[in-house]
Amino acid sequence: MNGAEGLLRTLAAHDVAVCFANPGTSEMHLVQAIDASGVVRSVLCLFEGVCTGAADGYARMMGKPAMTLLHLGAGLGNGIANLHNCRRGGAPLINVVGDHAIHHVAYDAPLTSDVEAVAKPVSAWIRTARTSEGLGLDAIDAARAARSPSPQPRGGIATLIVPADCAWGEGRALDRAPAFDASIQLPRVSADIVESVIRRLDEDTLILIDGNGLTEDGVRQAGRIAAARGSRLATPTFPARVEAGPDLPLVERLPYFPEQVLDALKPVKKLVLAGGQAPVSFFAYQNLPSNLVPDHCEVIHLAHRHEDVAQALADVADALDAPAMPGPGGARPEIPSGPLSRGNIAALLAARAPEGSIVASDSGGGGAAFAPMQRCVRHSWLNLTGGSIGDGGPVAVGAAIACPERPVFALIGDGGAMYTIQFLWTAAREGLNITTVIYSNRQYNILEVEYRRMGVNDIGDTAASMFALSNPEIDWVRLAEAQGVPGSRAATCEEFDAALQRALAEDGPHLIEAVL
Amino acid sequence: MNGAEGLLRTLAAHDVAVCFANPGTSEMHLVQAIDASGVVRSVLCLFEGVCTGAADGYARMMGKPAMTLLHLGAGLGNGIANLHNCRRGGAPLINVVGDHAIHHVAYDAPLTSDVEAVAKPVSAWIRTARTSEGLGLDAIDAARAARSPSPQPRGGIATLIVPADCAWGEGRALDRAPAFDASIQLPRVSADIVESVIRRLDEDTLILIDGNGLTEDGVRQAGRIAAARGSRLATPTFPARVEAGPDLPLVERLPYFPEQVLDALKPVKKLVLAGGQAPVSFFAYQNLPSNLVPDHCEVIHLAHRHEDVAQALADVADALDAPAMPGPGGARPEIPSGPLSRGNIAALLAARAPEGSIVASDSGGGGAAFAPMQRCVRHSWLNLTGGSIGDGGPVAVGAAIACPERPVFALIGDGGAMYTIQFLWTAAREGLNITTVIYSNRQYNILEVEYRRMGVNDIGDTAASMFALSNPEIDWVRLAEAQGVPGSRAATCEEFDAALQRALAEDGPHLIEAVL
Repeated sequence: MNGAEGLLRTLAAHDVAVCFANPGTSEMHLVQAIDASGVVRSVLCLFEGVCTGAADGYARMMGKPAMTLLHLGAGLGNGIANLHNCRRGGAPLINVVGDHAIHHVAYDAPLTSDVEAVAKPVSAWIRTARTSEGLGLDAIDAARAARSPSPQPRGGIATLIVPADCAWGEGRALDRAPAFDASIQLPRVSADIVESVIRRLDEDTLILIDGNGLTEDGVRQAGRIAAARGSRLATPTFPARVEAGPDLPLVERLPYFPEQVLDALKPVKKLVLAGGQAPVSFFAYQNLPSNLVPDHCEVIHLAHRHEDVAQALADVADALDAPAMPGPGGARPEIPSGPLSRGNIAALLAARAPEGSIVASDSGGGGAAFAPMQRCVRHSWLNLTGGSIGDGGPVAVGAAIACPERPVFALIGDGGAMYTIQFLWTAAREGLNITTVIYSNRQYNILEVEYRRMGVNDIGDTAASMFALSNPEIDWVRLAEAQGVPGSRAATCEEFDAALQRALAEDGPHLIEAVL
Repeated sequence: MNGAEGLLRTLAAHDVAVCFANPGTSEMHLVQAIDASGVVRSVLCLFEGVCTGAADGYARMMGKPAMTLLHLGAGLGNGIANLHNCRRGGAPLINVVGDHAIHHVAYDAPLTSDVEAVAKPVSAWIRTARTSEGLGLDAIDAARAARSPSPQPRGGIATLIVPADCAWGEGRALDRAPAFDASIQLPRVSADIVESVIRRLDEDTLILIDGNGLTEDGVRQAGRIAAARGSRLATPTFPARVEAGPDLPLVERLPYFPEQVLDALKPVKKLVLAGGQAPVSFFAYQNLPSNLVPDHCEVIHLAHRHEDVAQALADVADALDAPAMPGPGGARPEIPSGPLSRGNIAALLAARAPEGSIVASDSGGGGAAFAPMQRCVRHSWLNLTGGSIGDGGPVAVGAAIACPERPVFALIGDGGAMYTIQFLWTAAREGLNITTVIYSNRQYNILEVEYRRMGVNDIGDTAASMFALSNPEIDWVRLAEAQGVPGSRAATCEEFDAALQRALAEDGPHLIEAVL
C-alpha cells in the first residue's frame, strides 16, 4: 500500500466518505488510490471553487467533513473564496492539496508555490506531510482538527499538503483512533452561565441564535424560552444553516443594512448570544457605527460557537420548565400572477417547494424566500456566510450529494452565479436534483444600491457600466444547456410556475432564469 | 479630491492606463474615482481570475503594468492562480485590493480576512494603506515596485490594499516622480561576464533565452551569436512571450516531459543562461532527475532575468562582430484536409494567421502551432508560464486591450478553458478581436497521459471519470453564445478553415470548438 492509499483508507475510517476533486499531475497517486480503494465517492468539479463550496454544503448538511482534492497553491488559491465562506460558517472540511515531491521543491519548477502560505488565511490547521508512512497519522490529525469545536472565525478547515513522494512511497492505513469520537464532543455551558442568562430573560430580551443553535432541536428549545418569557428570537443576517418550517418556532432574521439592524435592535435591552457574535455592520460606512448593538443594551453570552449551543438553550428552557412553542403552521401562499419580482418568486417557491427541501441562497434576491417558506414548508436553509458571492451553486451541489432524497434549490443572483458557474456541469454529471433559480436583473444590483448609499445619485456612464451585466446580456438557458442542464426562462409568474413544476417533476438538475 | 481619486490620478501619472476590475462594496469610492477622473480605462470582468490574467497579458504586450481592482481577500483569492502565472512569467502588475475601513477590521465582519496574507504568496511588494493623504505616495511606490527589475520567481506583482476610509478620506494626486523612469532601467551585464561567455561559445553550446531576451531585438542578437559560432538557441518550455516569424532567427523550444528535455540536452556541453533558469522537470517523477542539465554540461550565466538580457546578447554578438542570421523565410503551409488533429490545426493557423497576430496558448494542444507559425508568420507568442491552466483566455483579453489593431488567438484546452470561461463575456463586451480555439477532446488529456506514465495502463472507471469531461459533454458553441460570442464547431479541416476565415473576417470575438 502506498502513502496515498494509506491516507485515503485512514480518512475513510474517520468518516470521510466524499471527495470533491479537481486533481492535477501531482495528485495522480491520490487519484489512483481513490480508484483502487473505492472507499470514498469522488465527485469531479471543473473549478476548485466548486470543490470547496460543495464540501462546505455537504458538511452543513452532514455535520461531518468531506475532503477536497486540489492541485498545489494555484488550485488551492482558486478554492479560497468559498473556503473563506466555509470558515465563516464554521463547517468542517479537509483539504488534501498535492505538492511537488519534497526533493523537487528546491528546483523551483514553474508550479512551485508556498502552499502553506496560500492555506493560512483560511485554515484552522495546516500540515505538510513529510513521510509516506506518516500520512495515516496526518490524516487522523486532519480529521480531528476539522471536527474539533473551534471558535469563530477559525472554523474547521484542515489543510493537509501531500508532497508527491509521500503519496507514492510506502504507506499504511490506520484504524479509527479510539479518541476520535470523544474529540468532537461540544463543551457544555456551565450552570452558572445558564442561571445568569435566566435572570435576564424578559420581553426586552433578544436571543440571537447561530451555529449549532439553529438545528431543529436548538430552534425548538429557543422557542420554549420565548414561550415562557416572551423574549424575541433571531438569527444573524448570514446563518450557515437554519432549520425552519410551520411546525417550528418562528425565528426572525436580522436584516442586512446597518440602519435596518439598528432599527430592529432599538427596543432590545438585553441581547443573549447563543452561538454567535454581537451584530456588526457588514461594511463600514461614513457616519454609521460598526457595532450595531444599542448603547443601552446589555450583551450576555449564553454559549459560544464552539460550545453546545442547543444544549445550553435546552438547559435554560428546562430550568424554566418551559412549554413547547407552536410553529406558525401557515398555509401555502396562493400562486401569484403577472410579472416576476423577488416577492413573487418567494411566494412561488413557498407554494411549490416540497416538504424537506434544502435551499442554498447566495445573493441577489433569494433571501426574500426565507420568510414565506418558514411559515409553510419544512426546509433547511443554507445561507451565504462569509459574503463572498458565488457559493450558492456549489453549496447546493454538496447538499444534494449529502441528501440525495431531498430536493435542493440554489437561489442565486446573476452576478454571483458567474463566479462558479461550473457547478452546473457537476450537477448534470451527478444527476443532482437541484433547481437553480437565477435572479437575472443583469447587474450587480447591490453595488448600484451601495453606490447610491454613498450619496451619488447621478451615476456616470463608466460607473454604471461597472455594475451592469448587460451588453452582452448573459443567456442563462444556453449557459445551462451548454453544461448539460435543461434551462428555461421566465418573465411572468405563470412561466416561472410552469418551469418550477417541470423542474420538480423531473429528475436531475434544472435552471430557471427569472427575468427581473 | 478624496484618497481614491488621488490614487487613481497618481497611478495614471505613472503610466497605468487600464484597470481590469471586479469591484465590490468596499471599492465603491474607487469606482467613483475611476468614473469621475476618467484617467484609466476600466474593463469589467465577471471573475477575478480574468482580471489578473488579463492584466498579465496586457503587461506582456505593453511592458508596463495594468491595475486590477479586487474585493478584499476573497476577491484577491479568486485571482491567485493567474497571479501565480504572472509572477512566474515576471510581468509587472498592480493589484488594488479594497478592504474594510481600518476601524472596522477589529469588528470581524463576515468578509474580514487577512488580505496581506492572501497576497503574500504571489506578491513581490505588499502594502496596506494607512491614510488617505498617503495613498498617492503608496501608488508611486506600487508603480515603482511593479516595474523594478526583479529576479524570478518574485516577479513584478505589487499589491496595494486600500481600506475604505483611505479611499473616502481627503487625498491628493502626485505628479510623476522624477526618479520613476530611472528606477526601471535594467542593469547591464559586465564586460567580464560577456567575455567569459564568448570563450565558451561553439557548436556544443546551447543558449537558453528567456525573459526580456525574447524580444525581437534579443532574438536577432542571439541569432547573430548562433551565426558566428554555430551555437544552438532555445527558449524554455513555458516562455512568457516570444517574438517569432520568418524574418527572425529560428529558436527551438524545449519540450515538456523530462525525458524529452534530457534527450534534447544530451549533446549540449555548455549551457548559457540568458534570462532564465537551468531546465528542471516540471513535476517530479520516480526514477527521473529533477535537474535536467546533463552531468557533463557546464552552466554559464550570461544574464539573469532582472538584467538587460537583450543588451547582453548584443554585447556578445558585437564582440564577435557577428553578422545577422536570416530567418527561415518559410512559405505558408498548404491547407490540410480531412479530420482535425492538433497538427492540422497548427497548419491551418500557420496558413491563415494574419501578420502580426498575437497567440495566447494555455494547454491542451495549442503549443503545436508554434513551430509552423514561427516559420511563416510574424507573431507574438504568449505562453502559459506558471503551469496553472486557465490563463489563455484572460491573457488574450489583456493582449487584445493592449494591441487593438492586432488579431489575437486564444488556443486553449477544454479542461483549462473552464477555469476562467468568463473571459468570453469581457471579450464580447469590449468587442475584442480574439479567435478562441477550444481543443475539445472532452478530457483532461494530460492527466490521462501522466497517469499512464505512473505505469498504470489499466485505468479504472473511477480514475477514468476523473479525467473525463464527457458525461455531459460541454457544448462550447452554446457556452460562447450564452456570453455574446459567436461560436462554431469544427470536426474537419474544411469546417475549421471556414470558421477561421469567418472569425478573421468579422470584427469582435469568435470561438471555434475543434472537435478532436
